[in-house]
Amino acid sequence: MVTNDDGMFAPGIHNLIDVARRFGEVVVVAPNSPQSAKGHAITIEDPLRLNKVDVFDGLEAYECSGTPVDCVKLAKNVILKDRKVDLCLSGINHGSNASINIIYSGTLSAAMEASIEGIPSIGFSLLDYSLDADFRASRVVVEKMVDYALTEKIKGCMLLNVNIPRLPYDQIKGFRVCRQSEGNWREEFIEASDPRGQNYYWLTGRFETEDLANDTDLWALENGYVSVVPSGHDLTIHGAIAKNTLIEKL
Amino acid sequence: MVTNDDGMFAPGIHNLIDVARRFGEVVVVAPNSPQSAKGHAITIEDPLRLNKVDVFDGLEAYECSGTPVDCVKLAKNVILKDRKVDLCLSGINHGSNASINIIYSGTLSAAMEASIEGIPSIGFSLLDYSLDADFRASRVVVEKMVDYALTEKIKGCMLLNVNIPRLPYDQIKGFRVCRQSEGNWREEFIEASDPRGQNYYWLTGRFETEDLANDTDLWALENGYVSVVPSGHDLTIHGAIAKNTLIEKL
Repeated sequence: MVTNDDGMFAPGIHNLIDVARRFGEVVVVAPNSPQSAKGHAITIEDPLRLNKVDVFDGLEAYECSGTPVDCVKLAKNVILKDRKVDLCLSGINHGSNASINIIYSGTLSAAMEASIEGIPSIGFSLLDYSLDADFRASRVVVEKMVDYALTEKIKGCMLLNVNIPRLPYDQIKGFRVCRQSEGNWREEFIEASDPRGQNYYWLTGRFETEDLANDTDLWALENGYVSVVPSGHDLTIHGAIAKNTLIEKL
Repeated sequence: MVTNDDGMFAPGIHNLIDVARRFGEVVVVAPNSPQSAKGHAITIEDPLRLNKVDVFDGLEAYECSGTPVDCVKLAKNVILKDRKVDLCLSGINHGSNASINIIYSGTLSAAMEASIEGIPSIGFSLLDYSLDADFRASRVVVEKMVDYALTEKIKGCMLLNVNIPRLPYDQIKGFRVCRQSEGNWREEFIEASDPRGQNYYWLTGRFETEDLANDTDLWALENGYVSVVPSGHDLTIHGAIAKNTLIEKL
């Protein structure tokens, strides 16, 4: 199955599908509106709409009114209820999902939801925000990753967060399996008035990090590698449990 | 600072604030609509509204049109820009955020955002969904946890996911520092037609787990303890990096 967070009309998902369909049957379930930065949101207060669409050259495809995680839940529990999903592919996102961005990203949250459901999954992101980004190198990356995932049978409880540098394929040095770099957004809010004179705030900011060690995804990307971060959903800081004296203290 | 995902009129946040204000200055920034299950969603496609309100007996308080994570970002970068935040408290959520629920929870995502920003934070949840839940035991738990956090100075990069069993205080055995249990939602979608005859799907489901080992939060809660899971934002499965042969394979 294929999903994303930019919706059906983003070039990224079309490039992903073009490659994925060489490997077997592809079913697409994607949001019907942009869902960037929706993180792991799900829709519980409202009903969801699901419509079959013909956008991808005869491929079975559905647009969903919810978030990327909703798409995965509907795919698994309704659309593909009686079919086995070998792999969930999400993206190709327009822009980086390296470092802390995995937490905010709809693309990666969809992949994570699939992995929570036991489906091996890969989230792809290209470090180029423009709608006319060059996906030629990304297509080769997708092909190699899907081939790897299907032949090596990556674990269902794990997702691979794959980020692709904005470089022609012959300048990409290879793949690096690495860790998520520590980093953060330094936010600024634009404060202004709307046409009715009401104040509003609009989020903006820049990404900052001091963690560029050579075992990180940011190092890999800055040095011409595709970064591959094996990621999961256990947020426990295990090292803090043994050391922690909380029980005695309280 | 205090926030939540149920909005200003939920009993949980009133109980949290009643206790928190004994320790010092409290500023509240909470969503103006229910934001359950919004995960780590942020608002980037729309402007945010922020209104000063007088809901908490003279306390400085703001309602925000965004998600719980938006509330934390606005609090840190706009409202409390020139003030130091000692602690972020989120909740008290009406319902469990143990196990995998930390990923979906707006309450916990707010606490996590604060920890990403370097602010020590605690998310509180009571295992009782009802609006007239008994918060008396929870108030004691909050008092002890806040006292602990302020005197022991818990690390800024960590949040504590605190879940409280639905028991009278004298039946709660104590606090257990533990790990997030493996567990998952088995979803079912209610399928029905709206008044216009259009099909819709509505998410429902039940939580399932086979991971009830005595070092887990679910075990703690089932056995009458308050569970405290030290949690972070590094999703990397570090053990998979060394073993992984991806670089050679590709």
